[in-house]
Amino acid sequence: MEKATKSCTSTNSSGSYANCQSGYLAVSCSCGNSASWEIKSEKTCHCANQDWTSARCCKIGKK
Amino acid sequence: MEKATKSCTSTNSSGSYANCQSGYLAVSCSCGNSASWEIKSEKTCHCANQDWTSARCCKIGKK
Amino acid sequence: MEKATKSCTSTNSSGSYANCQSGYLAVSCSCGNSASWEIKSEKTCHCANQDWTSARCCKIGKK
Repeated sequence: MEKATKSCTSTNSSGSYANCQSGYLAVSCSCGNSASWEIKSEKTCHCANQDWTSARCCKIGKK
Repeated sequence: MEKATKSCTSTNSSGSYANCQSGYLAVSCSCGNSASWEIKSEKTCHCANQDWTSARCCKIGKK
Repeated sequence: MEKATKSCTSTNSSGSYANCQSGYLAVSCSCGNSASWEIKSEKTCHCANQDWTSARCCKIGKK
């Protein structure tokens, strides 16, 4: 029996970085104080603030 | 003959919430006044404002 | 032997627009000055500023 899996999920952390779990790729980030963001190394969100960071992570293009 | 379908599409609404259509998952949100956002229940964008909300919605990981 | 390909990648440019490469779809945008954004014609990020624009681009739903 296969386990149900989510195609997309979010991870949150305090500070400037949030990481996606293994097998997921970061597709966007949301930042406290509405700061600008970038994605590093495919699975890490980096927000230009010291508040909180959220990563939206999806399983795509797995082969 | 199959209908052409879009892999990603956007939905917009006034206020703090925007929903993806059936079969699509929310991958990111854009908010009026550049507010911070979160994704609820896989397909709903929630912006921390009362202005407008846009959801970017894609078909991924369908099985 | 297949070439390794990235499922998602980012493109950056100065000004209000950033385009995804051929074969990629825009899934989110990040903007200088934390401006609001929209996606035009599937693969172009448009930020409401004159600073810089980044597009997050993924290969999804290719058929």
